[in-house]
Amino acid sequence: MPKNIVCFGELLLRLGAPGHERLLQTPRLDVVVGGAEANVAVALAQLGHAAAMVSVVPDNALGVATVGELRRHGVDVAAVHTGAGRQGLYFLATGAMHRASEVLYDRAQSAFALASASGYDWPRLLAGADLLHLSGVTPALGAETAAAAIAAARVARTAGVQVSFDGNYRAKLWAAWDSDPPVVLRQLFAEADIAFADHRDIELVLGQTTSGDSREQRIEAAARQAFGAFPHLQRIVTTLRTQHSVDHHELGAMMVTRDGGVHRTTDYTLTAIVDRIGTGDAFAAGVLHGLSSAMTDADALHFGLAAACLKHSEPGDFSRANQMEIEAVMAGTGFDVRR
Amino acid sequence: MPKNIVCFGELLLRLGAPGHERLLQTPRLDVVVGGAEANVAVALAQLGHAAAMVSVVPDNALGVATVGELRRHGVDVAAVHTGAGRQGLYFLATGAMHRASEVLYDRAQSAFALASASGYDWPRLLAGADLLHLSGVTPALGAETAAAAIAAARVARTAGVQVSFDGNYRAKLWAAWDSDPPVVLRQLFAEADIAFADHRDIELVLGQTTSGDSREQRIEAAARQAFGAFPHLQRIVTTLRTQHSVDHHELGAMMVTRDGGVHRTTDYTLTAIVDRIGTGDAFAAGVLHGLSSAMTDADALHFGLAAACLKHSEPGDFSRANQMEIEAVMAGTGFDVRR
Amino acid sequence: MPKNIVCFGELLLRLGAPGHERLLQTPRLDVVVGGAEANVAVALAQLGHAAAMVSVVPDNALGVATVGELRRHGVDVAAVHTGAGRQGLYFLATGAMHRASEVLYDRAQSAFALASASGYDWPRLLAGADLLHLSGVTPALGAETAAAAIAAARVARTAGVQVSFDGNYRAKLWAAWDSDPPVVLRQLFAEADIAFADHRDIELVLGQTTSGDSREQRIEAAARQAFGAFPHLQRIVTTLRTQHSVDHHELGAMMVTRDGGVHRTTDYTLTAIVDRIGTGDAFAAGVLHGLSSAMTDADALHFGLAAACLKHSEPGDFSRANQMEIEAVMAGTGFDVRR
Amino acid sequence: MPKNIVCFGELLLRLGAPGHERLLQTPRLDVVVGGAEANVAVALAQLGHAAAMVSVVPDNALGVATVGELRRHGVDVAAVHTGAGRQGLYFLATGAMHRASEVLYDRAQSAFALASASGYDWPRLLAGADLLHLSGVTPALGAETAAAAIAAARVARTAGVQVSFDGNYRAKLWAAWDSDPPVVLRQLFAEADIAFADHRDIELVLGQTTSGDSREQRIEAAARQAFGAFPHLQRIVTTLRTQHSVDHHELGAMMVTRDGGVHRTTDYTLTAIVDRIGTGDAFAAGVLHGLSSAMTDADALHFGLAAACLKHSEPGDFSRANQMEIEAVMAGTGFDVRR
Amino acid sequence: MPKNIVCFGELLLRLGAPGHERLLQTPRLDVVVGGAEANVAVALAQLGHAAAMVSVVPDNALGVATVGELRRHGVDVAAVHTGAGRQGLYFLATGAMHRASEVLYDRAQSAFALASASGYDWPRLLAGADLLHLSGVTPALGAETAAAAIAAARVARTAGVQVSFDGNYRAKLWAAWDSDPPVVLRQLFAEADIAFADHRDIELVLGQTTSGDSREQRIEAAARQAFGAFPHLQRIVTTLRTQHSVDHHELGAMMVTRDGGVHRTTDYTLTAIVDRIGTGDAFAAGVLHGLSSAMTDADALHFGLAAACLKHSEPGDFSRANQMEIEAVMAGTGFDVRR
Amino acid sequence: MPKNIVCFGELLLRLGAPGHERLLQTPRLDVVVGGAEANVAVALAQLGHAAAMVSVVPDNALGVATVGELRRHGVDVAAVHTGAGRQGLYFLATGAMHRASEVLYDRAQSAFALASASGYDWPRLLAGADLLHLSGVTPALGAETAAAAIAAARVARTAGVQVSFDGNYRAKLWAAWDSDPPVVLRQLFAEADIAFADHRDIELVLGQTTSGDSREQRIEAAARQAFGAFPHLQRIVTTLRTQHSVDHHELGAMMVTRDGGVHRTTDYTLTAIVDRIGTGDAFAAGVLHGLSSAMTDADALHFGLAAACLKHSEPGDFSRANQMEIEAVMAGTGFDVRR
Repeated sequence: MPKNIVCFGELLLRLGAPGHERLLQTPRLDVVVGGAEANVAVALAQLGHAAAMVSVVPDNALGVATVGELRRHGVDVAAVHTGAGRQGLYFLATGAMHRASEVLYDRAQSAFALASASGYDWPRLLAGADLLHLSGVTPALGAETAAAAIAAARVARTAGVQVSFDGNYRAKLWAAWDSDPPVVLRQLFAEADIAFADHRDIELVLGQTTSGDSREQRIEAAARQAFGAFPHLQRIVTTLRTQHSVDHHELGAMMVTRDGGVHRTTDYTLTAIVDRIGTGDAFAAGVLHGLSSAMTDADALHFGLAAACLKHSEPGDFSRANQMEIEAVMAGTGFDVRR
Repeated sequence: MPKNIVCFGELLLRLGAPGHERLLQTPRLDVVVGGAEANVAVALAQLGHAAAMVSVVPDNALGVATVGELRRHGVDVAAVHTGAGRQGLYFLATGAMHRASEVLYDRAQSAFALASASGYDWPRLLAGADLLHLSGVTPALGAETAAAAIAAARVARTAGVQVSFDGNYRAKLWAAWDSDPPVVLRQLFAEADIAFADHRDIELVLGQTTSGDSREQRIEAAARQAFGAFPHLQRIVTTLRTQHSVDHHELGAMMVTRDGGVHRTTDYTLTAIVDRIGTGDAFAAGVLHGLSSAMTDADALHFGLAAACLKHSEPGDFSRANQMEIEAVMAGTGFDVRR
Repeated sequence: MPKNIVCFGELLLRLGAPGHERLLQTPRLDVVVGGAEANVAVALAQLGHAAAMVSVVPDNALGVATVGELRRHGVDVAAVHTGAGRQGLYFLATGAMHRASEVLYDRAQSAFALASASGYDWPRLLAGADLLHLSGVTPALGAETAAAAIAAARVARTAGVQVSFDGNYRAKLWAAWDSDPPVVLRQLFAEADIAFADHRDIELVLGQTTSGDSREQRIEAAARQAFGAFPHLQRIVTTLRTQHSVDHHELGAMMVTRDGGVHRTTDYTLTAIVDRIGTGDAFAAGVLHGLSSAMTDADALHFGLAAACLKHSEPGDFSRANQMEIEAVMAGTGFDVRR
Repeated sequence: MPKNIVCFGELLLRLGAPGHERLLQTPRLDVVVGGAEANVAVALAQLGHAAAMVSVVPDNALGVATVGELRRHGVDVAAVHTGAGRQGLYFLATGAMHRASEVLYDRAQSAFALASASGYDWPRLLAGADLLHLSGVTPALGAETAAAAIAAARVARTAGVQVSFDGNYRAKLWAAWDSDPPVVLRQLFAEADIAFADHRDIELVLGQTTSGDSREQRIEAAARQAFGAFPHLQRIVTTLRTQHSVDHHELGAMMVTRDGGVHRTTDYTLTAIVDRIGTGDAFAAGVLHGLSSAMTDADALHFGLAAACLKHSEPGDFSRANQMEIEAVMAGTGFDVRR
Repeated sequence: MPKNIVCFGELLLRLGAPGHERLLQTPRLDVVVGGAEANVAVALAQLGHAAAMVSVVPDNALGVATVGELRRHGVDVAAVHTGAGRQGLYFLATGAMHRASEVLYDRAQSAFALASASGYDWPRLLAGADLLHLSGVTPALGAETAAAAIAAARVARTAGVQVSFDGNYRAKLWAAWDSDPPVVLRQLFAEADIAFADHRDIELVLGQTTSGDSREQRIEAAARQAFGAFPHLQRIVTTLRTQHSVDHHELGAMMVTRDGGVHRTTDYTLTAIVDRIGTGDAFAAGVLHGLSSAMTDADALHFGLAAACLKHSEPGDFSRANQMEIEAVMAGTGFDVRR
Repeated sequence: MPKNIVCFGELLLRLGAPGHERLLQTPRLDVVVGGAEANVAVALAQLGHAAAMVSVVPDNALGVATVGELRRHGVDVAAVHTGAGRQGLYFLATGAMHRASEVLYDRAQSAFALASASGYDWPRLLAGADLLHLSGVTPALGAETAAAAIAAARVARTAGVQVSFDGNYRAKLWAAWDSDPPVVLRQLFAEADIAFADHRDIELVLGQTTSGDSREQRIEAAARQAFGAFPHLQRIVTTLRTQHSVDHHELGAMMVTRDGGVHRTTDYTLTAIVDRIGTGDAFAAGVLHGLSSAMTDADALHFGLAAACLKHSEPGDFSRANQMEIEAVMAGTGFDVRR
């Protein structure tokens, strides 16, 4: 029983330096399509769902290529329209060892950021949908995208469409407009059934602080505050990442539920990381798939975590993993060549 | 006796599809640094002049790479500053046969376009210069760049620095601001000693039409009108291009001088063109070099044309040709492998 | 008024040596998706039609990639199923000058060739279609594909769906089974409304010879014979190619109609050819588009020829040209960089 | 005293996705020549032996390239003939972290698989040979290759040529024909002097199970059973691999001899594995080299293990290691740059 | 009846800028193996002869790679030894249009140049040979290589081995030692049965001038002088090249024989030249093959010319053409894709 | 307060096999500019100093490219002259796991090695300098370079310019001339204020041995001997490297000062090393920057070590790190993507 899932957000082109080079160390850029919500859409399409994207791209070769790549992966792009403005870009230098990867956003004046909130006919766009997925990137981009995201969430809530919201707070992006992030984000948390967020996201949104001896305690405390503040919210989910170096991490995950549940996975050790970008989106997609597939909360969380781990081994923003591959990670088997 | 030459304009990154592919047909872009005035600066530096660039780039890895490439070619970049805004980009698909090359400008909100005209201290920047080179691209980008270009030209005129102006009219770029191109361009022609322009450029600037049985007659007529309108202007120079297909052209050149001179080169046949971008800039640099080297007008024109022809064989925006190579083209010799 | 067009044929991966290298001269292959009928489907989708592919691919990463590439270009792939067998491949070394390009087919035991003719539910697959496009490649591959092609054509005829048939006779491919090509091909010509074929194709099919002082006379004579033999056939269309070297051709086109019309375009000169593969498919798609768009026969023929000329400049099997680009070729304008 | 060694098996082209990409994630394949027995031949040639290959390839550019690559590495290819059929291929996506590498075999109808067993004149092919090396891949491919392998082994036994047999059991490949693997493999084990196999291979061949508290105990028990069943067999040799992730393994090796010897190396830790393919073949070649060089059994085993470890650092199927490099691995020294 | 042919000369690595780039315009070099005599050896091996190379390379990875590439193409490299010194290199920037290709030799102190003339055991090296091929490059490199070349030619003459000598005069290379080129070259011409040379080569060697209204007349006159001076010389052969631009040539060929024969082919037009390097060597190999195959002089000359034309379409120094391909060029057919 | 730093040494082109391939495993080389002292110059320029290079390159495209790359990174190359001889090269195969990286020097007859010592006007070249940096590579290359290095150091000492000397002992290079390394090196140590050297370097120079239970004790003992022998020497600095495999090291650093100070950093663990070449130069530059910036000895040592660690993550010879990045390594923070 695949679900109908609508993702709303900007489509980006990633222009990356080859291997571990600095940006333009050699005169070549490798191109990948991404965007937080598009990554979720592609991952869900790979897992068998009917994923549809709502977005705006410029009417040029870059927009065509971006949309074509989503279409190639089976995402329904009928609701990706063209509009005035640029194609959103980001440049990436993939770090290594003690040198962090660097993302250089180049999204100013993008067609998506410039598109009027009134241009989206949400009741029609969400007709028949089971789930709407949004992230905190979208409202950061401008007043119009913020209004559009809030409108989408509200229409979904009204129409009985579940709302998934990934906090994804990135301070630099919010500088694009004269914004008050907590005010905006609260309106999105208010409509969400599930939020991907940790204690820092919640502290920001609620303007409160949390305490606790461990990250886990602080997350649980923050989640309880969030359930108090947002009556529709059922689940707070997050990864827990410890970084020993740029390419050596420990990754776990945690889910807190309104009904008192607290789930904490064991950690996976990740060495020789290939591509860390998009792993949070793979996690979100995995959890949403698990919950949509009648897994228990703990299993859905583990499935999401395994999807996130797997994504670290895949170059590009997209997760191309299928269910069998993710289950192999969960089982911890199958490391030898498959012939 | 090399000259001190100051070029003012935007530095661009060209992101090009490999070979003759469409943009993003395969997921890779080859990167080249360019910009009309930068191309002139590099070509003049290769020919032994002290070329300095005045520009503004963003304070990020893209700006660093762009400036570094000019520095690598011996251009003085001490007057390239950083400022708020993006790195100007353009995307290129190189055509072939009956399919034209396509340039997709992505220069909106660039650091150069956003930089305030008041930020340039022209008397200092032009101190000791023999020549200032500008193009019609710069005023097209915004009111500030237009004001800066005009200021530069006026200061140069006052200071006794020769002014070279390449019309380079591109309608799409002027859409970036609420502009009146003829009004702006007239102020630049008014200060120029030498203008790279044909009858269409002059018709636009003067709001007049020209007539004649041939292109050459119309250019001469237009040049005479220009000399009437702009008392400082000494020379009008232009290439004459006939295109049989995307990669098969005939290229000649023409110069009209205030003192009544009319010079028309014979045409070169260009087949299997490698890269047509930047050939006009190579032409301008060649002519300026010739005039700076005490060549006759006719020889300087021929030298510029040969430089332009040679540039068609060089991938990238820059001409890397030295004087010996250009003279070999003029002599029509030396086609065999040089061992 | 875009048309609903169904294409039936094998999807292929082209594994090509880089540039003008011999196969495996260096250890790298560039991969492109193709197949005669798929090329037509993509070209028609680029021109705005609803093109759907009917095919069979293996259930592995190669099949997924092949189908994904068609989907990326907007072709409906809902009727591309998976089946036992290999992914059809072909290896290509692109020649130059006096050295011909070489195609090495590797299609034996492909999923498409092995698929049972009874597996295609043609009435359902053709429901709502305006046109079915087939080629002579498909029946060459095996008894099942031959039976399937004939069944498709007959169902289309019965259902009032126009049938387009591209002769595409390749002797080597017919060796794949114990076949009698004329017998098979006659059954396909018998159902076709339009056939892409020259006098040699028709001579083969009818077992007759034609005479005439020129290629044109022989084609017209053969077409008249074909109209006599195949009462449904309305148009015979073909390119006329003269090859001065591997990358220097003259290309014209000719159409003969049942009602006595004979159209012969003027020839285009093609130099510095980038990729000759798929140009016949681009021609067919162009003619079909023209005829579907209420152009006159002569205009449709010219449009097809211009599409074919343009394809020679595009690397890969697919034509990505849009109507504006093709019309520019027809007008013989627009060779300079589009900025 | 280099040995004359004859290897019999299929030559393959490996078409690999770049880096850690999925197959056709980007449209390029990197090509490498391989095949289990060819890998052994190349490794032995690098170690100074006179290695000759017996095989069949198609009479086309792919066959030429494949054979040429062996010749380049000094393998005698005079006994590689051409025959009807395809070039055997395999596609590879190299995994990472928790994502296994994937091999997609595309060997159906290969020239080698189709070649008649009667086409090999084994007494002539083995004249002067010291050793014949075979693997379990060859009989899996078809009845003819199975018959040829058995014939080769029997002729070798008769002629006093030592026989080396690498079990290499791959269930998927045996599906190529209506085969009974144990029956076939028993006939090869019966002629072997040395077999590369672990307890699972022997259990399959003998239809028995083994028990033991450790892998080592089970291998020894199985080896004893094998010595009982196959009176010519002198040595059973195997690697012992523990996989913590796709690119982090522990690798040891073990040899059991008919005369009661049991040798177990210490384990090497392998992190950041570059290419795991062909490591078993490098091991076999290393052991064969050691035994041919009058090393003790324990030293030969250690040499083989070091060769296998080293191969994990070499991209491609072939080991290019020389004796000095392998001895450096055994010594655990020489990790710094050699200048 | 293939011939046994021995080639003596330096093996080189060509390090080439990609495409039409200037050297190190981008930081990558494409590597090809070459050397005038090695090119002849490879071309003759492709045509079915038993070609053996006599040379010296350094005992390092570069020497191994160079030799391996010859072995890959079927050249017998048993007589390529290692010696002290460097691997000979040359850097190449492939020009286009009006920009000549540039070769930057980097052969100083090469193992070949340093090798002692006394190290070659010519009677053994030439045992069983039908033909020895030398070029004027070898004596240019140093006193030892000059002495070795002369010794080889003399031993061949004595042993009844035909001697082929390609003049290949390159002034820059002769600067490597304190040499008197005419004195050295005369000793090689004196032993040659066939010389590849035009009037300029002969004028240099004989210290005479020739006159005539056309190139052809001057070549014939010079050849007659050469026949007078060198009694063993039977044939003078040369290409006649007219260059309209770097990638557009006319190519013909001419042979003058001692017995009064003069053969002049018609010219081939070569446009869009891929790689001009090695075309003279392909010509020599083609002529030698023709003469070895009992073709008439005129046919052998035409065959050589066709081989040379074909080589212009092949990237790299080597001609990989087989007899069928060359004959197709002679027939002027077969420009379409071979499927 | 940036310093004026002069570096004297050879500029090299590194020609590297892609990824972890063996040299010429595939026919491509990636090119990087390096050289021990140039690496220091670039690193110091990145850190804000005015770094100038003194060197000699050939007057050809390779020399131009080499110098251009330094200029690109902001190094003053006004004192890099051209001279007779070759461009110094080195070939690199980057190892992995248990396979060491291999450097193949190809520096014989380089323009730098051939340049006369008398050609350097040291008083002028060092005018205004704060620091001269030399390494032990330079005197190894020939008698002239040795004389030049000693002259430079002596002039610096006289002029009050600090002298930094990096031992960099490489036995193979010293074979280039009839040299007595200790005699030469003593003259350089004699003028140095700071030396990068460990006990083995000092033992070699002083012809003495040191003892101690640990590396640290031996280094301190050797340093005390050096301070005794060389009265100008103030600091001995070295890294301490432990190699578990080719790409897994522990790296620490130690400084011993004349005034009795002994500083030993803690060790960094380096896994998945990207490029080990140039890390010693990055260390030297980091220490020199620290000491020039009024850091304490311990802080300067730590800064140098962090710079060295960071360089292991950067492909190429150059460190492109800025102060902020190095301080992040010192702080052990900032492993996540920087957006």
